[in-house]
Amino acid sequence: MNILVINCGSSSLKFQLINSESKQVLAKGLCERIGIDGSLTYQPQGGEKVKEDKAMPTHKEAISYVIDALTDETTGVVKNLAEIGAVGHRVVHGGEKFASSVVITEEVLSEIEACNELAPLHNPANIIGINACKELMPGTPMVAVFDTAFHQTMPKKAYMYGLPYDYYEKYKIRRYGFHGTSHSFVSKRMAEIVGKPYDQTKTIVCHLGNGSSICAVENGKSVDTSMGFTPLEGLVMGTRSGDLDPAIVEFIANKEGLDIAGVLNVLNKKSGVYGLSGNLSSDFRDLEAGAKSGNEKAATAQEVFAYRVAKYVGSYVAAMNGVDNIAFTAGIGENDGRIRELVCENLKYLGITLDEDANKTRGEEVRISTPDSKVNVYVVPTNEELAIARETVALV
Amino acid sequence: MNILVINCGSSSLKFQLINSESKQVLAKGLCERIGIDGSLTYQPQGGEKVKEDKAMPTHKEAISYVIDALTDETTGVVKNLAEIGAVGHRVVHGGEKFASSVVITEEVLSEIEACNELAPLHNPANIIGINACKELMPGTPMVAVFDTAFHQTMPKKAYMYGLPYDYYEKYKIRRYGFHGTSHSFVSKRMAEIVGKPYDQTKTIVCHLGNGSSICAVENGKSVDTSMGFTPLEGLVMGTRSGDLDPAIVEFIANKEGLDIAGVLNVLNKKSGVYGLSGNLSSDFRDLEAGAKSGNEKAATAQEVFAYRVAKYVGSYVAAMNGVDNIAFTAGIGENDGRIRELVCENLKYLGITLDEDANKTRGEEVRISTPDSKVNVYVVPTNEELAIARETVALV
Repeated sequence: MNILVINCGSSSLKFQLINSESKQVLAKGLCERIGIDGSLTYQPQGGEKVKEDKAMPTHKEAISYVIDALTDETTGVVKNLAEIGAVGHRVVHGGEKFASSVVITEEVLSEIEACNELAPLHNPANIIGINACKELMPGTPMVAVFDTAFHQTMPKKAYMYGLPYDYYEKYKIRRYGFHGTSHSFVSKRMAEIVGKPYDQTKTIVCHLGNGSSICAVENGKSVDTSMGFTPLEGLVMGTRSGDLDPAIVEFIANKEGLDIAGVLNVLNKKSGVYGLSGNLSSDFRDLEAGAKSGNEKAATAQEVFAYRVAKYVGSYVAAMNGVDNIAFTAGIGENDGRIRELVCENLKYLGITLDEDANKTRGEEVRISTPDSKVNVYVVPTNEELAIARETVALV
Repeated sequence: MNILVINCGSSSLKFQLINSESKQVLAKGLCERIGIDGSLTYQPQGGEKVKEDKAMPTHKEAISYVIDALTDETTGVVKNLAEIGAVGHRVVHGGEKFASSVVITEEVLSEIEACNELAPLHNPANIIGINACKELMPGTPMVAVFDTAFHQTMPKKAYMYGLPYDYYEKYKIRRYGFHGTSHSFVSKRMAEIVGKPYDQTKTIVCHLGNGSSICAVENGKSVDTSMGFTPLEGLVMGTRSGDLDPAIVEFIANKEGLDIAGVLNVLNKKSGVYGLSGNLSSDFRDLEAGAKSGNEKAATAQEVFAYRVAKYVGSYVAAMNGVDNIAFTAGIGENDGRIRELVCENLKYLGITLDEDANKTRGEEVRISTPDSKVNVYVVPTNEELAIARETVALV
């Protein structure tokens, strides 16, 4: 079945048309500057990538252009809408309501809306995309795949903060976690690779990209993860601070003359390795180049990043009382051998030895621990779009 | 030598007169409500504890009454001031300036003052106490013992936050850590107990009291600790939240109509196990009783507390790439067997088996891991006053 996978932002829309049996991406692309002016980037399998300006006052026009491109006589990849079996929508926040993907109904839509407050920048855009598809493809079933759903199996001791209990009851303040589609996909694949039943293995997934999070997957279930109430918590990221003494928020506000929103803006957009490197870059290739050419702050940013990954891995080994597999994934996890090396240097106590040659590999599924290591360490490329397509097929 | 150990708060003053050779506490007590009205509680070794109202407009009067009590003909323990060899002052924050205890001079005093901004509630009070002693005991040498000093050996990757680098340069925002006197004392004692050289052993100290922190001590040096820029970060505490998604500060402010200072007040005084237990108590004995009688929130508070301790232990095993000893200390660490049990349940992967009988012990130095455990787990009572006295003797 061909699945149209949609990832909708407030002024953008990413899409892939995936054949769920062959896993092939038939076409993919991106709408940008929706509501401003608009452009469509479209690339059919094996074809040229073409970018065109198109007026997109709303997401409806954007999706209309996507459908036109997919069914176009010359560059299209399907004859008509009937060849698109279903639409899979990435939805960021499913709150405590959604512990798995779900076929979208009116009721589901209003329940997603009820989660808007928890992800005010993302969920409303996801809903706009769903509504636009509903109008333009009225006969096609749609599925919502949530970033948070996989983590709904966390036990209470992992998702409760040390806050007044009524903040949880009244405001739903708790750890939700994100990147669930990726953590689920990679941990399942990890079990396949090592030939263990998914529900009998302990895996730690290090999803290290521009946004980064770590997940402890015990017997097929997320039992803890480093992102929390929002995607700000946890690891040091490209521009996000990750964990912080909460008192620092007040200190910065006073020192810099900022209100809370102003401080949060700094923590989300000007911090992380970008801030640590003295505003050198949020791109780890630049940090690596900087560190090699003697930029001490760039080296510090790498070390702080990797050290915190190692500490999270260590804490999740305790959370699961052991670990069988560790998987690195996403942009940095799949490509940055230096970071993987720094992380694994702190994990020798687990009986892990890094295979230095294998660790030079970039972007491929490969074992990077030596065969005699007591814990399997792998690079496992993630594929969130394929995961969304699979979830979608399973439900329609 | 007899050492007067002073721990000065803004309206209180705790003291002990300790003989550094015999380790005996010759007398101890507390001045309260300084600047309001004033009272002195005094107890000589083996004698009755007596509380008297005394006018204490400033700390000077308070210390004057302490000296009177210590040298009193009937209840005193020394003849005169000459029998007090030195004064050891607990000072909370030594910033990056003080990596060890130091004899107090005019220069040192002004350097401590320069750290006031980092501990606005504590350092100014500590300085008042120092100045009062200076006036009343002009010939007696004084030493400052800092809560932060022991942690100044942390590597940069452990003390840097994922923040703009210039916040560190301009404002000195970094991890400092606290409870250093206790972590140092307990980790040294731990090495003695197991008969290993202090500089060749990896110990994790869990200082669990009303304020709680964990420290990784590698070869005699603090390499990481859970409290950070302030004592708010890290573990869930009696009334402090510990680690939190920084974005929650903004969310609470909006929901509760509070400014940043108002939110920080909640995080410091109404959170932790007190908040988690639905305002039942910050006292772990009440939580234990509550949990036993079926109070689910009390049980949750215990579990969240212990789970986070276990995760920090796990992360510090990674930080040191292994661990030889784990020590529990302070009020909860020394007395709460249930919490120690919950923590150790998550640490079996380290080859730790809890000795359930030994774990029933309260407040005594005891091994609570079985003899065949691969990591030694002990209860090691802390004694910060004795540690301050020893540091003082070593310098005068």
